[in-house]
Amino acid sequence: MKNEDLIRKECQDKISALIECLREREIEAAVFFDHANITYFSGLRLIRWSDYVLCIHIEGKLILVASRLDYERVKRDSWIENIVCFRDDTPDYLSVLGEKLGVSSGRIGVDPGALTHHQANYLKRLCGNGQELFSLEDELFELKSVKSESELTAIRRAAAIADKAMDEAIKKAVSEKGVTEREISNYAVYMMRLAGAERESFEPFLMSGENGWVPQRFSTDKKLREGELNLFDMGAVYRGYCSDLTRTFSLGGLTRERRKAFEVAYKAQQSAIEAIRPGKTGGEIDNVARVLIEKEGFGRYFPHLTGHGIGVSLHERPLLDRGVDTVLKPNMVVTVEPGIYVPGVGAARLEDMVLVTETGCEVLTNMKRDLI
Amino acid sequence: MKNEDLIRKECQDKISALIECLREREIEAAVFFDHANITYFSGLRLIRWSDYVLCIHIEGKLILVASRLDYERVKRDSWIENIVCFRDDTPDYLSVLGEKLGVSSGRIGVDPGALTHHQANYLKRLCGNGQELFSLEDELFELKSVKSESELTAIRRAAAIADKAMDEAIKKAVSEKGVTEREISNYAVYMMRLAGAERESFEPFLMSGENGWVPQRFSTDKKLREGELNLFDMGAVYRGYCSDLTRTFSLGGLTRERRKAFEVAYKAQQSAIEAIRPGKTGGEIDNVARVLIEKEGFGRYFPHLTGHGIGVSLHERPLLDRGVDTVLKPNMVVTVEPGIYVPGVGAARLEDMVLVTETGCEVLTNMKRDLI
Repeated sequence: MKNEDLIRKECQDKISALIECLREREIEAAVFFDHANITYFSGLRLIRWSDYVLCIHIEGKLILVASRLDYERVKRDSWIENIVCFRDDTPDYLSVLGEKLGVSSGRIGVDPGALTHHQANYLKRLCGNGQELFSLEDELFELKSVKSESELTAIRRAAAIADKAMDEAIKKAVSEKGVTEREISNYAVYMMRLAGAERESFEPFLMSGENGWVPQRFSTDKKLREGELNLFDMGAVYRGYCSDLTRTFSLGGLTRERRKAFEVAYKAQQSAIEAIRPGKTGGEIDNVARVLIEKEGFGRYFPHLTGHGIGVSLHERPLLDRGVDTVLKPNMVVTVEPGIYVPGVGAARLEDMVLVTETGCEVLTNMKRDLI
Repeated sequence: MKNEDLIRKECQDKISALIECLREREIEAAVFFDHANITYFSGLRLIRWSDYVLCIHIEGKLILVASRLDYERVKRDSWIENIVCFRDDTPDYLSVLGEKLGVSSGRIGVDPGALTHHQANYLKRLCGNGQELFSLEDELFELKSVKSESELTAIRRAAAIADKAMDEAIKKAVSEKGVTEREISNYAVYMMRLAGAERESFEPFLMSGENGWVPQRFSTDKKLREGELNLFDMGAVYRGYCSDLTRTFSLGGLTRERRKAFEVAYKAQQSAIEAIRPGKTGGEIDNVARVLIEKEGFGRYFPHLTGHGIGVSLHERPLLDRGVDTVLKPNMVVTVEPGIYVPGVGAARLEDMVLVTETGCEVLTNMKRDLI
């Protein structure tokens, strides 16, 4: 099957699965305003600063609303037939929607974290006063967390782009003396783009030395120096899908204490990855990393979760975190990234993307890890 | 005054002005979740994928909520004293807020286009059932559209970065034969970053030849060719403030028809800029460009507005568009960008950023315009 046809078929399958959920809950239509959900169900490349609305009606009718300036392009590129256009840069795309939506029961499903209060108010007026919108958060999680074939293809490509750019950027940092955090970050952005990224999945950051234990999380004009831990986090977007990769490296000359911090972060990450398989919960995987870090005496320096789902959004469920009882399933993709941040010492974290398989897992990012 | 002190003083002035509005409307607190408003009132650099909440209480009390991972950095960098931290990557930053907000009347002001349905529901529960949140949209427009001294400094810098990157990118396009839209876009991103941009204000796009009249609005692997119009739109972010710049150029060999399209777009833009002064409305400025384009016979090829405000957001009010009665005031910054997109011919648009002065206007972007 051609990739384009596969994407279309998969989108139609996703929509059918969502319609099943609408039927069960007697919701007449799902309405999405955010780019992540619209990318997920349409496969269409969206213009990031442009507005779209996707309506999925329980009877199978689809409406995609696009701005006038993007109308011809969307008509050309989208497999969805019913495309409605509104005038750009004005807020009245909502009124176009009202004419076309055709919801009689007033029961509309939404992603409540991904539409604005303004959009929600508008939909409520459409539904008739006093109506609540229905959250599809759990249904969307069930659908979106398990990746399809074409989604995995895109994610693998986004992961490979990050691998390559990380390699190039660290080579530059090691070979050129006196480069700054910002120079390396900027170079990594350029390398990701040359390798085919649509854009970055977030602004890359390189935290060197004391910036690591703040943590600073944006690159500064500080120069890299021997003897410091450098933590570099970046990711690319390919066909709407995100990657996320962290490596810790040095220019040599680390103290034993800094090496130890790196080794603990490394061991915690590898143990957590080894524990991943279908049936395990997010909390169990987190616990593997957390217990190991605590045993080594770094417990209070690990202030965040062990990992998160990734797809059309950089951060999505399932979380690998304390107490999370979400069960891992085949074809979920998660990051694994326990980290330690020790004041006066430095920060160390390795982050990889991991695909849950039928029997265990497969690591999708492959950049080398022993970089200190 | 040191720049840092000026930013702090200006933020405090903005907050005082907002509190005046809260008093008039008997709103007990304003709560912001979006990065644009929080950047505007705090001057703080925010981590883009991190959550924050800023509460401005009618009595002058400020609360800034930051994630645990960004807590130390925010404490170090922010002049706001009351900083509350929540655990990362979990949605319960809202519960932290509940403990601290201390709103008794249940009257909370928000920016309804800039908080999610989920956040709005949470605030409504805090306020007691059945309460509506109060929109501060108009008050925020009044405040944010008129730029302060330090805001203008940041905007000028963002404009200069875009100017420089545009120049470098077009030089590369003209001197190297056979480069693609994507190669030039990627290079411009790198040039903006080398010139000091925090990031891009949007994904730059170069539309060459037939991609111009679609319009395509993202760069592809199409090679640039002689005889085509190339439209390149890009912008940088500096200290949270956006720039936005478009140039149309060619590699030579244009037909008379294509030159004509360029000249009409150019004349329309220059006439609109010349018309800008305090007291004029957004609709009047739009009309100058629109009438000129219509007279030249290109009316139906100008499908968008003439310009928009710009600041902490790439697109904000005032709009320069049909029927807009917003009156221009000194220290507003707008883009001016009438464009024409003729099937079979190409697209032509020039976009500059323009500061409204006491007596007229000043163009903030200065990259040369006669590039065909």
